[in-house]
Amino acid sequence: MADFVLYSYWRSSCSYRVRIALELKEQAYEYRGVHLVRDGGEQHRSDYRQLNPMGQVPYLIHKNVGLAQSMAAIEYLDAVHPQPRLIPTDPVDGARVRQLCEMINTGIQPLQNLGVLQYLGRHHDLDGEGKAGWSRHWMELGFSAFERELETHAGKFCFGDTPTAADCFLIPQVYNARRFKLDLGAFPHITRITETCEAMPAFKRAEPSVQPDAQA
Amino acid sequence: MADFVLYSYWRSSCSYRVRIALELKEQAYEYRGVHLVRDGGEQHRSDYRQLNPMGQVPYLIHKNVGLAQSMAAIEYLDAVHPQPRLIPTDPVDGARVRQLCEMINTGIQPLQNLGVLQYLGRHHDLDGEGKAGWSRHWMELGFSAFERELETHAGKFCFGDTPTAADCFLIPQVYNARRFKLDLGAFPHITRITETCEAMPAFKRAEPSVQPDAQA
Repeated sequence: MADFVLYSYWRSSCSYRVRIALELKEQAYEYRGVHLVRDGGEQHRSDYRQLNPMGQVPYLIHKNVGLAQSMAAIEYLDAVHPQPRLIPTDPVDGARVRQLCEMINTGIQPLQNLGVLQYLGRHHDLDGEGKAGWSRHWMELGFSAFERELETHAGKFCFGDTPTAADCFLIPQVYNARRFKLDLGAFPHITRITETCEAMPAFKRAEPSVQPDAQA
Repeated sequence: MADFVLYSYWRSSCSYRVRIALELKEQAYEYRGVHLVRDGGEQHRSDYRQLNPMGQVPYLIHKNVGLAQSMAAIEYLDAVHPQPRLIPTDPVDGARVRQLCEMINTGIQPLQNLGVLQYLGRHHDLDGEGKAGWSRHWMELGFSAFERELETHAGKFCFGDTPTAADCFLIPQVYNARRFKLDLGAFPHITRITETCEAMPAFKRAEPSVQPDAQA
């Protein structure tokens, strides 16, 4: 039996981050799909809310410890399985990587997650294109700042020449950007790093389209 | 001269988090006010964007290292000035505290920060009460989940009997909740912990109303 259980939804970018981290660390995990759309969203069911009151994925379980929040989960993985390290131990390098993660974690993703888009549709009459436009606005702002940071700190990956947590956050956000048809032409570092990551087996195994609950 | 410089705005809840962390660690810092509203917002000025491309506060400088993102800044402070520790070193305890921080950092604050509210006003016709209602909706959802976590993990503070990063995140969010007139009656743990923290000198010194740039 795998040490880890991951409650995930194939298209959830936050779940995708934790899948990449698990794959980079070569940790096997049991995948449990939570369908965020079917029947009004399985994340709202009382048995799932019991597990994670925020009603979100991912939710990572390891030896009876259950953890919501992808950043907390990745920090935890780094503590219990330090190789390869995804957040450098040096305080300044660690801060640089965390800053990149949080630019996506707080500055982009929360504004275009499913719950927010559904609320905008229900209460503010945003249709599909309206929601895509809203999402693109915040992604463009965030990616512009992220790209600026990469100019200073990127190597082959977002920070230096090995994958870090910043890459675990970037690739799923680029996946979302493509869904919402954001033009990535203005972000050459993001584009280059995405190509590098997407060619790696660990990142490939974490891709939405190959998850057990993926739909055509 | 103080070791730290903090670019801050008195009412910014993210700046308030880092002020609390600096005060708990008894670190002196030079306060530099960035007025988020005057003249269209000083955070958009090119000299500030040069420093922090996201155009947000806080921005912490320590020995030529400049850091955006409050979570990254607090992790950094914990690394360079470990006493008192705000994020426990034990992997599980650390994960619990980080999870609480991120519930606010990603689940609540990004949806009611100034930039988002201004955008909702400009592009979706939300007036003052509409913005307050939008903000209360996300705070209520997030606080409900946070309160559920506190039922399991709280002691005198959010996690155990000493202040942690979770308290640095909670108190500024409660400050925002009061501004938007959220009824906190349904959140007894949050209310009790807020009273405990607000009675402490370190939290008092970080309060918005006593900052150099505070306005009546």
